[in-house]
Amino acid sequence: MKKYKVVLDCMGSDKGVEMMVRGASLALSEREELELMLVGDGEAIVEAVKREEIDPSRVEIVSTSEVITNYDSPAEALFTKRNSSLVVALSALAKREDLVGLVNAGSTGALIAGAMMHLSLETRVRPALAALLPAERGGFVCLVDTGATIDCGPETLAHFARLGSDFMRDMYGIENPRVGLLSNGKESTKGNKAVKAAHAILAEDDRISFVGNIEGTNALSGDCDVLACDGFAGNQVLKVTEGTARRIITDIVKIAKSEGREEYMALAGQLMKRYDFNSLGGGIILGVRKPVIKAHGASNEQSIKNVIHMILNLAANKQAFEGRE
Amino acid sequence: MKKYKVVLDCMGSDKGVEMMVRGASLALSEREELELMLVGDGEAIVEAVKREEIDPSRVEIVSTSEVITNYDSPAEALFTKRNSSLVVALSALAKREDLVGLVNAGSTGALIAGAMMHLSLETRVRPALAALLPAERGGFVCLVDTGATIDCGPETLAHFARLGSDFMRDMYGIENPRVGLLSNGKESTKGNKAVKAAHAILAEDDRISFVGNIEGTNALSGDCDVLACDGFAGNQVLKVTEGTARRIITDIVKIAKSEGREEYMALAGQLMKRYDFNSLGGGIILGVRKPVIKAHGASNEQSIKNVIHMILNLAANKQAFEGRE
Repeated sequence: MKKYKVVLDCMGSDKGVEMMVRGASLALSEREELELMLVGDGEAIVEAVKREEIDPSRVEIVSTSEVITNYDSPAEALFTKRNSSLVVALSALAKREDLVGLVNAGSTGALIAGAMMHLSLETRVRPALAALLPAERGGFVCLVDTGATIDCGPETLAHFARLGSDFMRDMYGIENPRVGLLSNGKESTKGNKAVKAAHAILAEDDRISFVGNIEGTNALSGDCDVLACDGFAGNQVLKVTEGTARRIITDIVKIAKSEGREEYMALAGQLMKRYDFNSLGGGIILGVRKPVIKAHGASNEQSIKNVIHMILNLAANKQAFEGRE
Repeated sequence: MKKYKVVLDCMGSDKGVEMMVRGASLALSEREELELMLVGDGEAIVEAVKREEIDPSRVEIVSTSEVITNYDSPAEALFTKRNSSLVVALSALAKREDLVGLVNAGSTGALIAGAMMHLSLETRVRPALAALLPAERGGFVCLVDTGATIDCGPETLAHFARLGSDFMRDMYGIENPRVGLLSNGKESTKGNKAVKAAHAILAEDDRISFVGNIEGTNALSGDCDVLACDGFAGNQVLKVTEGTARRIITDIVKIAKSEGREEYMALAGQLMKRYDFNSLGGGIILGVRKPVIKAHGASNEQSIKNVIHMILNLAANKQAFEGRE
């Protein structure tokens, strides 16, 4: 059986090394082909690996002495903290062929900057942080960008559309992902200047299956597999969805209490799970040589496990596609 | 008693003249101080006024022969269709002191362009279409812009913030409306280029009470009375909220059916009413000399009545404020 080794940066999570290793343990127990490189505080990792009774032959432990935190300036920390878990993890991933991807739950800025520095495919391309969100009609929508590049010109938007298309092919084996462009109306004449110009570029692009503009009402309906937008707009889609879901669920709880309708509480719980998009995984850095995923700082072991599995699926599918072509 | 005469353009609604006059009749029956100028197909209006048994002394009927539709180019139609209900209504509003504001349910583009042409306060100011949305903690948030000006520089964003602040004072008598700026993070360093520059302008502006950046999660929470953004982002806030609400309510209906839980249907109905922001009124054109409101094309008589009352409240409050100052 072909083995896939994923790098797990164990530092920087809100919940500490132990939780990261619990996630690693869950992932290993579910997928035989998985191996892990665990990077961070060596002592704490060794202890946690023993406690979780992880088979030592499936993990490689790399001990580092520094941590890049949210308080560090990302660009600076990548140069000054050379023995940080993130820098060591990224440079190993860049150099070693057997490593297929990386998971981190620390500073988003440092991860994006570091991934661009160590793993970039092309020069002068802006980074993209994608999110996989559950579509209304089933499946997932890849929203790209969600905040890595706030100001985007038309070429950057078109580039994000192509990155998202490649990603959905690698991730789910969708041969021709439907690519939409977020706008304020369906017609090609709608949009801000960058969106209108991006529409013209994408309409002529043979590499992707462009379905045109998508409005906010249908951002996550499933009308497209990939939704391209700048980081400012993508952030609004994510956060307005989150805010609206929170508000409606709060309303249901209030109605349940004020009208003494106990039965509504179960429904509120059900919806809360369904719309807790945070637990699904995290941000995926697109446009780099190997998959790099930012898990949320508050991830629990299930989320970490899910994210490790995403890397595994990406690596295996990518190989299948590349082998076929 | 001081009388207030509101102009109602009876043409262009999806539901015809009759429905507009039914809305007029409801509004007149609830507010003694109201008078109306009804503009449009004279015969149809006279007939509807009789059918609704409206007191003829409270309405002035102005008959016009043309209609500007959604198929017309707004800028062109304003010049070529000189006897359209909209052009006649706007020019009467501009010329006559006794007219306090205008309601229309037709072409948004033509209404905005026409209002800027006939009623603009300053030259070289971009138009803004605001929406009043129910805040999570009660009251309303004035979202400005929602789609009139898609590309905005920092000065335009700051201008919209001030227009929204004046509007909330006139509409609800809030002395110092809290003004927020939509961004992708709370910190002043977050935002696209225009938003960051607008933040710096607003932070120095003594005329308004600036509360800083507001994220999408809290766009409608009630952290601010006015939320300034460009028309592209405002359109996303409106439509993503609408799409998320529709999706969750649809989920509740599906759960009710699949789990045989009849009682959830009542809740779905209750939420559908609460989150049907369309029925609330319409878009308010800010930055013009007198209040002009675009009601939705699909408005029913209740929505038309609500919008007429909004104009009445604006006119009365504005007078109160101006009298005091």
